[in-house]
Amino acid sequence: MDNQQKAKILAEALPYIRDYSGKIVVVKYGGNAMTDEGLKSAVMRDLILLNLVGIKVVLVHGGGPEISDTLKAMGKESRFVGGLRYTDEETLRTVQMVLAGKTNKDLVKLIEKNGGHAMGLCGIDGGMIRAERIKKDGEDIGYVGEVTAVDTKPILDILEMGYIPVIATLGCDETGQAYNINADTAAARIAAELKAENLVAMTDVRGLLLDSKDEDSVISEVKVSEVPKLVRAGIIGGGMIPKVECCVEAVRRGVRRAFIIDGRLPHSLLIELMTDEGIGTMFVS
Amino acid sequence: MDNQQKAKILAEALPYIRDYSGKIVVVKYGGNAMTDEGLKSAVMRDLILLNLVGIKVVLVHGGGPEISDTLKAMGKESRFVGGLRYTDEETLRTVQMVLAGKTNKDLVKLIEKNGGHAMGLCGIDGGMIRAERIKKDGEDIGYVGEVTAVDTKPILDILEMGYIPVIATLGCDETGQAYNINADTAAARIAAELKAENLVAMTDVRGLLLDSKDEDSVISEVKVSEVPKLVRAGIIGGGMIPKVECCVEAVRRGVRRAFIIDGRLPHSLLIELMTDEGIGTMFVS
Amino acid sequence: MDNQQKAKILAEALPYIRDYSGKIVVVKYGGNAMTDEGLKSAVMRDLILLNLVGIKVVLVHGGGPEISDTLKAMGKESRFVGGLRYTDEETLRTVQMVLAGKTNKDLVKLIEKNGGHAMGLCGIDGGMIRAERIKKDGEDIGYVGEVTAVDTKPILDILEMGYIPVIATLGCDETGQAYNINADTAAARIAAELKAENLVAMTDVRGLLLDSKDEDSVISEVKVSEVPKLVRAGIIGGGMIPKVECCVEAVRRGVRRAFIIDGRLPHSLLIELMTDEGIGTMFVS
Amino acid sequence: MDNQQKAKILAEALPYIRDYSGKIVVVKYGGNAMTDEGLKSAVMRDLILLNLVGIKVVLVHGGGPEISDTLKAMGKESRFVGGLRYTDEETLRTVQMVLAGKTNKDLVKLIEKNGGHAMGLCGIDGGMIRAERIKKDGEDIGYVGEVTAVDTKPILDILEMGYIPVIATLGCDETGQAYNINADTAAARIAAELKAENLVAMTDVRGLLLDSKDEDSVISEVKVSEVPKLVRAGIIGGGMIPKVECCVEAVRRGVRRAFIIDGRLPHSLLIELMTDEGIGTMFVS
Amino acid sequence: MDNQQKAKILAEALPYIRDYSGKIVVVKYGGNAMTDEGLKSAVMRDLILLNLVGIKVVLVHGGGPEISDTLKAMGKESRFVGGLRYTDEETLRTVQMVLAGKTNKDLVKLIEKNGGHAMGLCGIDGGMIRAERIKKDGEDIGYVGEVTAVDTKPILDILEMGYIPVIATLGCDETGQAYNINADTAAARIAAELKAENLVAMTDVRGLLLDSKDEDSVISEVKVSEVPKLVRAGIIGGGMIPKVECCVEAVRRGVRRAFIIDGRLPHSLLIELMTDEGIGTMFVS
Amino acid sequence: MDNQQKAKILAEALPYIRDYSGKIVVVKYGGNAMTDEGLKSAVMRDLILLNLVGIKVVLVHGGGPEISDTLKAMGKESRFVGGLRYTDEETLRTVQMVLAGKTNKDLVKLIEKNGGHAMGLCGIDGGMIRAERIKKDGEDIGYVGEVTAVDTKPILDILEMGYIPVIATLGCDETGQAYNINADTAAARIAAELKAENLVAMTDVRGLLLDSKDEDSVISEVKVSEVPKLVRAGIIGGGMIPKVECCVEAVRRGVRRAFIIDGRLPHSLLIELMTDEGIGTMFVS
Repeated sequence: MDNQQKAKILAEALPYIRDYSGKIVVVKYGGNAMTDEGLKSAVMRDLILLNLVGIKVVLVHGGGPEISDTLKAMGKESRFVGGLRYTDEETLRTVQMVLAGKTNKDLVKLIEKNGGHAMGLCGIDGGMIRAERIKKDGEDIGYVGEVTAVDTKPILDILEMGYIPVIATLGCDETGQAYNINADTAAARIAAELKAENLVAMTDVRGLLLDSKDEDSVISEVKVSEVPKLVRAGIIGGGMIPKVECCVEAVRRGVRRAFIIDGRLPHSLLIELMTDEGIGTMFVS
Repeated sequence: MDNQQKAKILAEALPYIRDYSGKIVVVKYGGNAMTDEGLKSAVMRDLILLNLVGIKVVLVHGGGPEISDTLKAMGKESRFVGGLRYTDEETLRTVQMVLAGKTNKDLVKLIEKNGGHAMGLCGIDGGMIRAERIKKDGEDIGYVGEVTAVDTKPILDILEMGYIPVIATLGCDETGQAYNINADTAAARIAAELKAENLVAMTDVRGLLLDSKDEDSVISEVKVSEVPKLVRAGIIGGGMIPKVECCVEAVRRGVRRAFIIDGRLPHSLLIELMTDEGIGTMFVS
Repeated sequence: MDNQQKAKILAEALPYIRDYSGKIVVVKYGGNAMTDEGLKSAVMRDLILLNLVGIKVVLVHGGGPEISDTLKAMGKESRFVGGLRYTDEETLRTVQMVLAGKTNKDLVKLIEKNGGHAMGLCGIDGGMIRAERIKKDGEDIGYVGEVTAVDTKPILDILEMGYIPVIATLGCDETGQAYNINADTAAARIAAELKAENLVAMTDVRGLLLDSKDEDSVISEVKVSEVPKLVRAGIIGGGMIPKVECCVEAVRRGVRRAFIIDGRLPHSLLIELMTDEGIGTMFVS
Repeated sequence: MDNQQKAKILAEALPYIRDYSGKIVVVKYGGNAMTDEGLKSAVMRDLILLNLVGIKVVLVHGGGPEISDTLKAMGKESRFVGGLRYTDEETLRTVQMVLAGKTNKDLVKLIEKNGGHAMGLCGIDGGMIRAERIKKDGEDIGYVGEVTAVDTKPILDILEMGYIPVIATLGCDETGQAYNINADTAAARIAAELKAENLVAMTDVRGLLLDSKDEDSVISEVKVSEVPKLVRAGIIGGGMIPKVECCVEAVRRGVRRAFIIDGRLPHSLLIELMTDEGIGTMFVS
Repeated sequence: MDNQQKAKILAEALPYIRDYSGKIVVVKYGGNAMTDEGLKSAVMRDLILLNLVGIKVVLVHGGGPEISDTLKAMGKESRFVGGLRYTDEETLRTVQMVLAGKTNKDLVKLIEKNGGHAMGLCGIDGGMIRAERIKKDGEDIGYVGEVTAVDTKPILDILEMGYIPVIATLGCDETGQAYNINADTAAARIAAELKAENLVAMTDVRGLLLDSKDEDSVISEVKVSEVPKLVRAGIIGGGMIPKVECCVEAVRRGVRRAFIIDGRLPHSLLIELMTDEGIGTMFVS
Repeated sequence: MDNQQKAKILAEALPYIRDYSGKIVVVKYGGNAMTDEGLKSAVMRDLILLNLVGIKVVLVHGGGPEISDTLKAMGKESRFVGGLRYTDEETLRTVQMVLAGKTNKDLVKLIEKNGGHAMGLCGIDGGMIRAERIKKDGEDIGYVGEVTAVDTKPILDILEMGYIPVIATLGCDETGQAYNINADTAAARIAAELKAENLVAMTDVRGLLLDSKDEDSVISEVKVSEVPKLVRAGIIGGGMIPKVECCVEAVRRGVRRAFIIDGRLPHSLLIELMTDEGIGTMFVS
């Protein structure tokens, strides 16, 4: 690559850096996108680089597979109702332990190891994520909750202190009862309450595909008002629906842009935020 | 009790409140002192009251019994070498999960439930507690470490934000390797680095007893220079030695006063800090 | 008294300390409540204790008996019209001299002697209390005035500097003419203009009595809207009327609570502000 | 006077205004210089003008004749020992009352009346002037003290608040005992402790005269090192000696310039500080 | 001149100094008023004196004669249309060079030489003066512009830094095209946008004369509402009309007072601003 | 270019951006490197981009050819002594006019036109560059000076205000006499006094060439201690000597790195500062 090409990329990236400077970007990471250790390190390095140039990065994570593994090790089967984990008291204790004590701290360690500074929290800390119990299709599913309020002060304070907040999506109510909360919807709500510039959902798909069989048919930009039409056309379907819904919800609540990008592509985060073309699908209002 | 007695207590307490205002008090809580749920709530309420009148309370905890219980549930026996838990990789994973994910967050929940505001951290967060591997009597005991440095900035920042920091005593080195750290010695070191006014070790004994059989023979005040003499005299012995050593270490490193008080006595913390007589044993330089 | 009782009182007082922190409490002290030297010292110590824990105490005083004594020493008889001192030019000079030079500075000395810091002012300083001449029942009574405006800036500034402002209730108009002003009404007005949390009138009665012959029949709390009814019922009468009126006036103008307490009971101030039961009569809106 | 002359004076005065801006000037006023009401008003107006352009003016006063008058009115004779008033307890009470209650507040009223803002204090307020008892030529003279320390904080705070501090020179010791203090020496000490730019002693003489019979023979500038020589030559003698000593003391302790000027000449203060020639005698190191 | 007269002038000037403290005064200087080197130095010294006592002085200048001289030296004739210089591209280059490079920097040098601190700018710097092209009586006159907007931030920042801003009245549009702008109207607009206290136009006339043949018939004060009447009466006419229009425009846009004074009279600026009588003509709303 | 390459460049550039954030980079631009209008715009855009991401860019310029052209237009021949322009009074007037009025303001216009914000100054403004007269080889060369001191406050203040300072290298002495100063040496001195991170001299050569006939033989990095050896080896010679001397001088005085880069290569500034390889020659200590 010659100097002119380099200069072109830099000249293209610099205004983005300026525009993002001091802005909040919420990155949702987890599940299947988070399995490979090498990729996990690469994503953390991208977060650190973004943080380095003044972007206030917030990392929100779930922890699916690790919870099941630990439950299993303790001789307890996982049970799901309509895609949500049935969470009895014992399960809740394990969910809390794994999410806040394992996944969360492992991500913090990885950031620290790669030269960044992170602070791991869960929604219980400072009463940050208030939640209430939900049912699924009328059926009781135990201590599963949905977000009723987010106190952004601790997150903003930690950002101000210069750390990357790493947030496990547990919540609690006023009686001190904890709840297991879906990480995607929590991330959308946190981004909205933080008045974030961006929500970036890192998944294991390329983005929204015009033709589900062609990975190169990623739709770069979608207006949230067009989503119902795309659902009716069958372009948004299956497992994409909840992810798209979170993006739509975030944008509706004031986040400027929401992205679905492929966490399996190296540096997809950097490319999406710092170049004109992008790499996944961007949702705007 | 009549008004004159009330007034006397208040007139006695007010100057303490003034003197402690803005000062840092590190409270070490855990182990056997922490078993009863009712007492645990009472201790948390005392912390909240102290915090209420401007004292910067830091709570440091270990989590002995819960770790063993979880290991057991996962089919793994606990093994101790010279009083220290042998910590292989699997054990370390469980220690981290329980300390940072269970004990820590349960204390946070209890403070929040009682009307306070707490933020739970472990020594990995922000690289706060740097540690290195130790041996015990020449024998390898796995991932057990001792504190080499404490970064007080995150703790001070969280205090500034108005939260009670609740700290699980895990540490890590620069390669991101985590270590299991003794909570008493970590608390002493944290208190020293924070230039705390006080270190209060809440235990399950009345304090230092002149006559080990008489619970009312508590020695109120000990100069750290007198400790060797008391050891030789057999007054300090057995399980008290490590606790006293932490108090001595803290005072030597600049903490103004260190206390051993009985966590099983309701409001022992309040009485110790806010009245002339105190209730346990105070170590001063 | 055992530790549990002590802890109970402290746990009860701490939230009050927190709630009063940074708030302004105006204490009116003087006349017959101020005669005993020992009690005077005790009251000053209470003020200092309150100030110690962050309450912004303002002391407003009159000086009845001392004025008469000095006039007498100078061969001049005191003359009263409807309870108000007839104040000719010579009397006014003496009133100013005694209030601002004697009573005021003696209170300052007493606070300083007991370890506090006070700054003595009168309403002339900084043009703080603006007043205009009044008549009594249509009769001229000389240089007796009522408050038309209060400049709270000097008081607030002195509080900010950490001193207890001690205020002699003289006033002046724009031509520099001084006036003798009733201390009770001045205190009520000052409290209102300072948006004080409390006005505490220290008198030589227990409070409002349900049965004027039974000192233990103190009414703890009165809504200002109930006062007219209590007057009609004869429960408020005689010398209590002007004192109650000041409390009512203060509350009407925005002071949160006004108290009539007995300055002759040791530490009545402390008990009233720092315990649940109180000791005198509290007026609220 | 034509415009060129006006411009010359302004061009001359402006750099002085700039140089004095934010600096402290202590003015000692009192005794015989303070008798005429019209002159008193004129002096206050000069103080206000200086204050107006950013000079921090501090007024220190005694109150000789008024004290004697009041004592006399109360049937008590004044008694002097070596020029100092013998101050028994009754006399002290009167001195306090007159200085702090009358002279002080009358000066405050005069400043307020002329459009300025003043705050009257005495050395007792805030424990500002610490004093200890002195003897005169080995003879007991009662509660007469000399300054041992000055707490400048209240004066500086009041200046910061924008008021002219008016200070009556009473002092007190730690037991709360008040003392009568000579105003000239107190002013010199206050100026020194405030690190004042100037001390201006307003008296009833033109300044230091080369020929004591010729009022036009004022010596404009004297180095403090030359004073002994001038004493020996008889040029400084009689009543001038204590006044000159105060100026020398002030300069020795770091005040940049000390002046003796004639308070009976209208606007002598303004002329002295704002023009090249001056009008009285300036002492410099 | 005796001391009483001096004191009178000072007592008169001090309140003006106070009132002007921190206020902005825009001085328009240039053209024929600026020819004599001695006078130029005297004016700069007056600006420095005003600046010295806290007045924020802004100097706006044109540069008529020097532009013509330079054009002539380069073999180019000046051409005027309706009093405005026809400004082709070559002329514009010379105007920019002379105004921003010569007149501007020569004034800066003169201020620095006399002990002040100045910073020379033109309307191009920081895009400070936005302008658009105008015609004169329908005729094209080249790159002559009028002010469309003023960015006061750089001027205020330079004032804050303690410098006297010296501004050459060039402007530019968004394409970077520069324009030659009339200095009088630019000064009026700059004063208005700065919310200046005063605009002082220094010219080569005494002010507005009641009788154009009598230099002593200066009208001291004119209400802007009276101007049309004075024009009809022929009192304002000829070359005075544009100058008066600028004053009226400035006052209409919120400048408190605008002055026309004679730059040829030494210290006219000082006399006008610091004395009761003034020297030229003042326009008020 | 694919996304991985893009990401690589970004990941490479981000740490530079972070390291340069808030640092000062002095760019010397002028002479032959400044002739092409298109390139001039490109360089200004690079300055703006660097400024955009928080680098404090200072532009220092000379103006050789334009001065000669203007002198010629005014019928005056340029005369050089040992490479320095003989500067009589008339020449100095023209140098001032062209540098401060033409070159300087043209660069400001170009930055403003490309979306940046610049403020044009010369060394006379605020007495910023103090200079004294020099001779060349013992021969008088008129008003040619060398820098004796630089007041960095105005430059730092303008940077703080968010503008790019554009500085014409005129200087003056205390009598207000201006001097013509060599732009390269002035830039080196300004960079040193500003404690700049970098000095970048933009010239019309590729850098220091190992083989003067091969443009691709640029030496990337030179230690200033190696310079004498390179001079002796003939690698540094001719016109490169003064440029290298400035770089050496800057580094010796504390500038971290000095660069000679080719202003004729598009974006050479961006490539040099934001990539690992660089493009010209870097001088380090």
